[in-house]
Amino acid sequence: MVDALVPTHGGDRGNLDGAAGRIDVIEAQVDDVGVVRDAAAAAEVVFNLAGQVSHVESMERPRFDLEINTGSQLGFLEILRETGSNAVVVYTSTRQIFGHPRYLPVDEDHPVSPVDVNGISKSATEQLHLLYREQYGIRASSVRLTNVYGPRQRLRDNLQGFLPIFVRRALSGEPITVFGDGAQERDCLYVDDVVECLLLTARSAEAPGEVFNVGNDERLSLRAIAEAVVAAAGTGSIESVPWPQDRDAIDIGSYYGDSSKAKRLLGWEPRTSFADGIASTIEFYWSRRSQYL
Amino acid sequence: MVDALVPTHGGDRGNLDGAAGRIDVIEAQVDDVGVVRDAAAAAEVVFNLAGQVSHVESMERPRFDLEINTGSQLGFLEILRETGSNAVVVYTSTRQIFGHPRYLPVDEDHPVSPVDVNGISKSATEQLHLLYREQYGIRASSVRLTNVYGPRQRLRDNLQGFLPIFVRRALSGEPITVFGDGAQERDCLYVDDVVECLLLTARSAEAPGEVFNVGNDERLSLRAIAEAVVAAAGTGSIESVPWPQDRDAIDIGSYYGDSSKAKRLLGWEPRTSFADGIASTIEFYWSRRSQYL
Repeated sequence: MVDALVPTHGGDRGNLDGAAGRIDVIEAQVDDVGVVRDAAAAAEVVFNLAGQVSHVESMERPRFDLEINTGSQLGFLEILRETGSNAVVVYTSTRQIFGHPRYLPVDEDHPVSPVDVNGISKSATEQLHLLYREQYGIRASSVRLTNVYGPRQRLRDNLQGFLPIFVRRALSGEPITVFGDGAQERDCLYVDDVVECLLLTARSAEAPGEVFNVGNDERLSLRAIAEAVVAAAGTGSIESVPWPQDRDAIDIGSYYGDSSKAKRLLGWEPRTSFADGIASTIEFYWSRRSQYL
Repeated sequence: MVDALVPTHGGDRGNLDGAAGRIDVIEAQVDDVGVVRDAAAAAEVVFNLAGQVSHVESMERPRFDLEINTGSQLGFLEILRETGSNAVVVYTSTRQIFGHPRYLPVDEDHPVSPVDVNGISKSATEQLHLLYREQYGIRASSVRLTNVYGPRQRLRDNLQGFLPIFVRRALSGEPITVFGDGAQERDCLYVDDVVECLLLTARSAEAPGEVFNVGNDERLSLRAIAEAVVAAAGTGSIESVPWPQDRDAIDIGSYYGDSSKAKRLLGWEPRTSFADGIASTIEFYWSRRSQYL
């Protein structure tokens, strides 16, 4: 495993638990040739999850976002090319590349129109993966994930999206802030469903060169999501406030993805209801409060 | 004028001729804050033409292309934002962002699907311009040019596209190499038509936030273009060779743009036939051989 372990980006050795001894952790940027080359050359499968995910942070430090999410990633693809890698590469992209949906659910033909730097840098890197597939035979594909949640996600501040914020606030007995009427819909993905999708993508002979929109058939309003989190936690509450201006600018309204291509080509199905997923999530964090809160 | 004057990128003080005394040349990367800030803050109009245009070079030095064409450009947009710029910004993008055309002529709704790093980095920067328009009110628009030719273009090597190569070979009495049957069509743009388009874009109140595909209604096969160059030069010849593998990979087949949006919103029309444009071009270079060849 290669992880730069940038403190705010979510990587955490504590997440490895009992697997720590069996996993070789290389603490490096993915484009750090000297350190990464041998691991990259030896890999049969690369799950390329490295990156900075905060939309707000990408607007505050745009060049850092571009460097982390595109520059380093291009360097990593160069390493794969130079080592003649035959690995299957599964890149995790994001629904954020689509910006404001022009229609719902959003399928792979939907125009790419990012509304923040993060969406632009992630989209460029997805294109680079497809280019390196086309030009150099790197067996890359891209999975565009919606809002992922579950155990081991970083909760500490507001940099990993709204779901970790909701969970932290509920567990801390603080009110969950819902902007506006909270009617915007989302299709949240439980981490186990994401892992299964990544494994299926890696195994599928049809995946290389393809992009997949991966969302959930269960769609919930932000208010309903907040209510489910509070119900599962048994603590916390919900408060409604008007839209803050800086969020308004990069909000995308309702979003949910059309996962039929992933279902058809990969045989994937999301299996976890939000009620079940959030219950497991809350249970995990209750038992490890001091580690994550 | 800000120009990094990277030797292979086309900038050349010799191009200024009699205007040299009236133009303040700042030799810097566009993101060099200390040097560029005052000029950027004072500008009423920014013609943002800076960049690396070689498709082949972008594959040989991909991170350099990304840094020049996207990283520096993002830094420049940050300068405009930080200085509260009210300038009109006209960014020159490229037809290369579309890759292999799915239909012809290519309009603004055509999917963006670059086939080289240059297309990806230019596309990302176009998106960044639109983002900074949307988020910060930077009055940016983007003009996607096809193959530009005319006086003062760099001819010295093969880094500025096929037209300068054709002109140099004809002027040097060398054969122009046409790959395959040379039947792929292109819509070449004479530099005066491009300048007029940029001026009209800067003046149009409707331009900010818009993208324009700017090509020519006259479409010629690469073989016909080569023949016209040889005819205008009165020297040189044409030789046909099979496709070299490294070009094959990034060739896009026939391409010509649909400029109707630019015509409608900007009142622009391409005025120069290829026969006239290439005659003026050849005449210019004949008289300045030692400076450009």
